[in-house]
Amino acid sequence: MADGDIVLGANQYGKAECRLVRVDRETPVHRVTDLTVTSQLRGDFAACHTEGDNSQVVATDTQKNTIYAYARDGIGAPEDFLIRLGRHFTDDFPWVTGGRWAAEQHAWDRIPVGGAPHDHAFARTGGEVRRTVVQLDGDDTHVVSGFTDCTVLKSTGSEFSGFPRDRYTTLAETDDRILATSVTAWWRYTSSDVDYDARYARVRDLMLETFASVHSLALQQTIYAMGQAVLEAFDDIGEVVLSCPNKHHFLVDLTPFDLDNPGEVFYAADRPYGLIEATVQREGAPTAPAAWATIAGFC
Amino acid sequence: MADGDIVLGANQYGKAECRLVRVDRETPVHRVTDLTVTSQLRGDFAACHTEGDNSQVVATDTQKNTIYAYARDGIGAPEDFLIRLGRHFTDDFPWVTGGRWAAEQHAWDRIPVGGAPHDHAFARTGGEVRRTVVQLDGDDTHVVSGFTDCTVLKSTGSEFSGFPRDRYTTLAETDDRILATSVTAWWRYTSSDVDYDARYARVRDLMLETFASVHSLALQQTIYAMGQAVLEAFDDIGEVVLSCPNKHHFLVDLTPFDLDNPGEVFYAADRPYGLIEATVQREGAPTAPAAWATIAGFC
Amino acid sequence: MADGDIVLGANQYGKAECRLVRVDRETPVHRVTDLTVTSQLRGDFAACHTEGDNSQVVATDTQKNTIYAYARDGIGAPEDFLIRLGRHFTDDFPWVTGGRWAAEQHAWDRIPVGGAPHDHAFARTGGEVRRTVVQLDGDDTHVVSGFTDCTVLKSTGSEFSGFPRDRYTTLAETDDRILATSVTAWWRYTSSDVDYDARYARVRDLMLETFASVHSLALQQTIYAMGQAVLEAFDDIGEVVLSCPNKHHFLVDLTPFDLDNPGEVFYAADRPYGLIEATVQREGAPTAPAAWATIAGFC
Amino acid sequence: MADGDIVLGANQYGKAECRLVRVDRETPVHRVTDLTVTSQLRGDFAACHTEGDNSQVVATDTQKNTIYAYARDGIGAPEDFLIRLGRHFTDDFPWVTGGRWAAEQHAWDRIPVGGAPHDHAFARTGGEVRRTVVQLDGDDTHVVSGFTDCTVLKSTGSEFSGFPRDRYTTLAETDDRILATSVTAWWRYTSSDVDYDARYARVRDLMLETFASVHSLALQQTIYAMGQAVLEAFDDIGEVVLSCPNKHHFLVDLTPFDLDNPGEVFYAADRPYGLIEATVQREGAPTAPAAWATIAGFC
Repeated sequence: MADGDIVLGANQYGKAECRLVRVDRETPVHRVTDLTVTSQLRGDFAACHTEGDNSQVVATDTQKNTIYAYARDGIGAPEDFLIRLGRHFTDDFPWVTGGRWAAEQHAWDRIPVGGAPHDHAFARTGGEVRRTVVQLDGDDTHVVSGFTDCTVLKSTGSEFSGFPRDRYTTLAETDDRILATSVTAWWRYTSSDVDYDARYARVRDLMLETFASVHSLALQQTIYAMGQAVLEAFDDIGEVVLSCPNKHHFLVDLTPFDLDNPGEVFYAADRPYGLIEATVQREGAPTAPAAWATIAGFC
Repeated sequence: MADGDIVLGANQYGKAECRLVRVDRETPVHRVTDLTVTSQLRGDFAACHTEGDNSQVVATDTQKNTIYAYARDGIGAPEDFLIRLGRHFTDDFPWVTGGRWAAEQHAWDRIPVGGAPHDHAFARTGGEVRRTVVQLDGDDTHVVSGFTDCTVLKSTGSEFSGFPRDRYTTLAETDDRILATSVTAWWRYTSSDVDYDARYARVRDLMLETFASVHSLALQQTIYAMGQAVLEAFDDIGEVVLSCPNKHHFLVDLTPFDLDNPGEVFYAADRPYGLIEATVQREGAPTAPAAWATIAGFC
Repeated sequence: MADGDIVLGANQYGKAECRLVRVDRETPVHRVTDLTVTSQLRGDFAACHTEGDNSQVVATDTQKNTIYAYARDGIGAPEDFLIRLGRHFTDDFPWVTGGRWAAEQHAWDRIPVGGAPHDHAFARTGGEVRRTVVQLDGDDTHVVSGFTDCTVLKSTGSEFSGFPRDRYTTLAETDDRILATSVTAWWRYTSSDVDYDARYARVRDLMLETFASVHSLALQQTIYAMGQAVLEAFDDIGEVVLSCPNKHHFLVDLTPFDLDNPGEVFYAADRPYGLIEATVQREGAPTAPAAWATIAGFC
Repeated sequence: MADGDIVLGANQYGKAECRLVRVDRETPVHRVTDLTVTSQLRGDFAACHTEGDNSQVVATDTQKNTIYAYARDGIGAPEDFLIRLGRHFTDDFPWVTGGRWAAEQHAWDRIPVGGAPHDHAFARTGGEVRRTVVQLDGDDTHVVSGFTDCTVLKSTGSEFSGFPRDRYTTLAETDDRILATSVTAWWRYTSSDVDYDARYARVRDLMLETFASVHSLALQQTIYAMGQAVLEAFDDIGEVVLSCPNKHHFLVDLTPFDLDNPGEVFYAADRPYGLIEATVQREGAPTAPAAWATIAGFC
């Protein structure tokens, strides 16, 4: 290639959003694992792009089949499942040098009947969606996990004041407001020796406890504290990335109706919303940009 | 008007989807009520439609203001709040003969911190959304309540066989399948002397218990049983209407990969889906079409 | 049945949202028809609900197969396709007494290449979605057609004043505002001798022309005029039903920044929104409630 | 800071999705510009995160106000508007070293009345949404523009064969299939001397023409050709990034019904879908990762 020639840059391809439900039925007490899985390969696919030569293109349909076939032996934690899946592709196809495998997990609770959890009837759990992105890059394995759509609210214990005022500033300072957000969190594992299911639950709970406990002077402060708590608790997590809309709840002005409103009646706005995004990391530690590549949103 | 003249028929108007959040803060243990409220008026609005005469048009902005002002005195059950709201409009404006007031309720759980529920920090509960539609029509008050997006699944205990076969039938019979649906339920109260919050919880739980317990020969049979259980338990519920997609989970054929699949690996399809809709009612009882008018979906 | 016994009421079932794309390729200039089709049967299905007896349950999978098989002979207008489809079910299965068949049509434009429309490359047309609901009820055939998501805006030529003021009224009167809505329209055909494709285009265009041309004193007046125009133009349309959100565009107050705002800078709000719904009909004409049953939204 | 100390990493904050509609009304022929604007600042905000010190936090509300105030002087191309907006923040606040400003543009067509485009009545154009992301980083200004949701389909002129087969491969080869995708495209400008509105239209049209014209041996080949065409036509575009789902249209097997199906009746699947993503760039040219940071999706 000469300088200036048009060439293929970074690329990846695969099958997205394979809806996979596995029932573990060794005993009458069934377990359900419900994932939406995406597989994308990276490697030498230039001939396909430039000449339509598919001889190295592992069909996206084949990737889908492989996902379902691998589920036959059990799934376990989504992180572990994706690592096994990814290694299959990089091991079996020499020109596949890496890739990206992602999953969303949809949780199910047992329906209580007569006070006892039912053996094989479930209701989909609401709340946040657990996610993971595994990326293989030569000999490196990157695991970034997290959750999204975790909507939380504090009805007091939140202030916002002391911000600079310019000609475009009209916002009043407040020492008591509703703070509400929908947390999207990602964290990177620096070890592969992790019980991912147990860890997920602990990180998620710790973030929510921190949200609840910190008296907030700014949403920035709250989310930094959430990331800090996770890094302090777990040495094998390298960074935490948080993306949090500030879901504004405006106190309704009831004075035209001769009513006061002592922090009781709010209008919850849709748009616009604040959007606060931050990385919490360890000084001097490597940051692994390859682990964060193509993770949607801020990173 | 002469026959054939073009005239105004049924009509209603108002403000839709007012996002109302109320914090009850008499004690440090706050309570949060989170509703999306719609108010629509019916009555004599012909002059507005035909001549642009707004002298009887209570502005939709006024309806919105009224919702927030009424919340100042507390909300309580959404059914009770909507009845109070509706009566204000029919009482204060002689040409308003009725209307439709609807609410969705978004539930919040307390975040546990150190094992105890927090006083003023909450996480949005997932799962189903509670709804109610109150319609006033002259002296009649109709209350229809229900929920939507309640996604449930049985990993066994469901069959489907014995259906007729014609030239377009290819479906195999099965004596063990996954049964999954997302329940949309509505029920009509025939009494106004109801503790709506407590009742909602009991009806919802009873429906889920029935879904779990009934060995299903068809989704039709399951949803009929769900409605029947509610009518048997509560004399002051007149009808139950259920609309349930059959969210197909297809057993993946793993034989091309030399694998069996004994009811373990499934593909969860998006579309098309079955759609099963039924009313369960009491023989000989009045059915109150005015209560069901304009309730979205099947009725 | 004795009075008070719990019984099955109105019910229907079928397959929803079958994504059907047909390519007409008799000539190198292909045509594409893209529908999302729902089929639902009504009739004697009581034994299935109460006993799980499926002997009369035409499987929803069979209904889906029939949709695709019927498309083999061509689709034509969606109204005609659904009528043929519906009659198959009522003709072939004695216990099927009627049903509901619905379609959304997604339009495609030819991609222009070198100034000429391409023979077989298309871009999905945006804007409104065409819809139709065909209901068979014994010997009656009801056809209701319309569209949704047709978003229109007038940057002037819209006022709102003269409305009543009570203690909850704060809205200012205005003689110049943005009027914006997303039109959902339905109309009922009273004849079966209609070129549905041509008629659809004419009704849609007439509604938009009326929206543009009427100087609006209220959105109610505008939508009544839209329905009136259609009924005046077409004798074989019995009623028009319109459901139109008032998508508020608020003039931004720029005075804190020492700027005027002569109708130029607006904030487009999401929620709440006005919701104006009306039927326009002919005095003395039959209204055919069975034609409008189960049509989502206001009717 | 000592190595291992927990510290703030990359961060940004601002106001997202400000719905801005501007009416240019110098003449009776109005023009409408409809944008959804997001403003996010980068710089020295550590004290806010670690101590809740807001003295350098330009409120997100102030950012919103600034967007509306700046619109008072006209918008023009969204790229130009965002550059002006961004420079205001970096010029006026010394600790703001850069940021990210993004817009979606929603197009409106004039409604034709009596064959002529109306002066002040518009219908929202469907099809793709135009987008731009402007990032300031010290003295650098990065402009990446593109579109999303541009759904296109070829009813012939697409093959897929010659791909490798392993134990998980079941896909049949085909020399005639429907090729459909929803194009998400981004391209980076390497010059600031661009008529962004005119250029947008030309790039968009060129991509669609290329999609239509290329006989496709793989979607990879098609999207590479689309990027190549843009780079060949415009020297001041540095890279093109495309993310294209392969929206599968499966030929329906009608043989159980004794029908053939010569490429006419298709089932359009939702999920899973192929996902093909590629960068097309110039050999040896700088790639400007800072321009692509935080652009959602593949980059």
